[in-house]
Amino acid sequence: MSGGGAIERVLEGFAAGHKASLARAVSIIEDQREGHERLAATLHPKLGRARRIGLTGPPGAGKSTLTTLLAEAYLAAGMKVGVVAVDPTSPFTGGALLGDRVRMERVALHPNVFIRSMATRGSLGGLASMTREVCDVLDAFGMDRILVETVGVGQSELDIARLADTSAVILVPESGDAIQTLKAGVMEIADCFVVNKADRPGADRLRNDIEVMLGLRGGGGAAPDAHHGIDLKALNPKRQAREAAARDDDQWTPPVLRTIGATGEGMPEFIASLDRHLAYLERSGTLQSRRRERLRDRVRDVVEHRIHRRLWRDEGIQQWVEAQLPALERGEVTPFTVAEALLARSVAAGTFTGSPT
Amino acid sequence: MSGGGAIERVLEGFAAGHKASLARAVSIIEDQREGHERLAATLHPKLGRARRIGLTGPPGAGKSTLTTLLAEAYLAAGMKVGVVAVDPTSPFTGGALLGDRVRMERVALHPNVFIRSMATRGSLGGLASMTREVCDVLDAFGMDRILVETVGVGQSELDIARLADTSAVILVPESGDAIQTLKAGVMEIADCFVVNKADRPGADRLRNDIEVMLGLRGGGGAAPDAHHGIDLKALNPKRQAREAAARDDDQWTPPVLRTIGATGEGMPEFIASLDRHLAYLERSGTLQSRRRERLRDRVRDVVEHRIHRRLWRDEGIQQWVEAQLPALERGEVTPFTVAEALLARSVAAGTFTGSPT
Repeated sequence: MSGGGAIERVLEGFAAGHKASLARAVSIIEDQREGHERLAATLHPKLGRARRIGLTGPPGAGKSTLTTLLAEAYLAAGMKVGVVAVDPTSPFTGGALLGDRVRMERVALHPNVFIRSMATRGSLGGLASMTREVCDVLDAFGMDRILVETVGVGQSELDIARLADTSAVILVPESGDAIQTLKAGVMEIADCFVVNKADRPGADRLRNDIEVMLGLRGGGGAAPDAHHGIDLKALNPKRQAREAAARDDDQWTPPVLRTIGATGEGMPEFIASLDRHLAYLERSGTLQSRRRERLRDRVRDVVEHRIHRRLWRDEGIQQWVEAQLPALERGEVTPFTVAEALLARSVAAGTFTGSPT
Repeated sequence: MSGGGAIERVLEGFAAGHKASLARAVSIIEDQREGHERLAATLHPKLGRARRIGLTGPPGAGKSTLTTLLAEAYLAAGMKVGVVAVDPTSPFTGGALLGDRVRMERVALHPNVFIRSMATRGSLGGLASMTREVCDVLDAFGMDRILVETVGVGQSELDIARLADTSAVILVPESGDAIQTLKAGVMEIADCFVVNKADRPGADRLRNDIEVMLGLRGGGGAAPDAHHGIDLKALNPKRQAREAAARDDDQWTPPVLRTIGATGEGMPEFIASLDRHLAYLERSGTLQSRRRERLRDRVRDVVEHRIHRRLWRDEGIQQWVEAQLPALERGEVTPFTVAEALLARSVAAGTFTGSPT
């Protein structure tokens, strides 16, 4: 394998703690360059040090500012910090106000931080897998905290957020009708809510609404809910379970925090909440189960990637499919019968267990 | 199979030309309800009548208006018309001005038209496959023209546009720096360019820029290109090939048309261009090769879908993966060795050739 020497050199520099080697390793993984599987396999036993913190929310919620403030705080505490930005509106990836960018660039100069933005090429589905792999590289490098910033609250962004040990959902009073964005999926992933820019009008209202949804507040009459026209409580699928388990004294209830990114107000409480949640994760065994979930997904990804590569790059299979096309066109066979025959042929030919490149 | 009778009833109504049965068939395919493969297999031999026309472009380009006008023209010519909208800003799918919606609703009442909007749940990659399958159902129903409207010019939208026999890219003078959106991928799929809202300032300039990019104009000095700071000619990967084949008298060069959706101006020329392109496709054998490409993709989708279902719903495999997790966590094995063992076990157990549900 011609890339062998290059991978060895990356691994040597990586083991010696060189950021340049880390950057190369991340690129090899992200671009799936030759040797990427060997690199990932070599790094695999080193996983497990880092705590992964996801920051998710709509554009303009101030995620980048909070990410920068968190990174600064962890660095000040002597930790090594990785930042992965999957957010086209983030200063880490491009679009941002000058002030955000300057602050981020200052943090980036610190020797104990490594910042990487993920290209949003290809589908977001693939991006979630790739983000997890990049986080694994940062973990193997010895990062204590990995901050993953993602924008939006759609399914694909939730898949990315789900990679983290702890997920914070960042909202602002003016981010549209914020309650509308708190769909079931968001409630599922949120270990912590942050109402950022909390000095602006509507912050208390938003906080109250979230707390009603979480079942932290009775909501009194219909007053705080009614003007949205939504039954806030019904939005939270975890709520009933939480209420049923109310006597369990080690149940995590997502706190709803207030921050002002511009001044740093509320940051100590946010950091303390994340620490408390990480401690809870360890104590309750949830940290381990989240890690197992990631390993399970990783195995599945590798299996699917190999099948994909072996099947569709196989010249014999390509030729066979081409030979079926005329009969398919004439409607004499269907895509289903052709697919089934292809599977049988591939199994018989040993295609699925071919040697990896 | 409990869904058997239901599928038979849908097929009967379908064969009799009932729109309600078509609607049910589309839903069964789109939601992958029980029996959807049998339905698709039964319809497969009926494919091939429809010509599929894609309309792609940035939001606000007036795609829905042009789609409606095309549908009206084809209906007036006695054709049966299907419309598939994969566009969250379209009146077919929801967000639209009242005027657009009224016109579309009037068209929708015509007995020879069927309109379907695609839910954008899941990834756009899956959406492209699903759009192709829905178009197949409309084709099997006997539609003469299928209009597929997609918004945006990203990779995923291009995948959807690529499903069509003929693709029109719709632009407007004010759609940002329109030339910037004409990336290599767009140039590849565009069989026809339409400058809509051509009564607005900048229409001639946009048309000129596209023609320079297509090599239809020398571009004289640097004048029309220079203010963009881009070498327009370099953006077009097909251009050299086209110039090399300049003496081939059956080469298709995408026309650049002007329309005003609000008044219908330019529509006869647009319709004539689409007809000319469809005739060119048939004459040159390109129609057949585009269909073969769709069949190839369809076989691939079915194979991957079956593998996915058989592997990850197999209880034995699930249990085996769970049993590997502790060693994976301890770093004694890697995701790669586990994946390889899983593939070998699945082949041995006949998982890949399991009977479809």
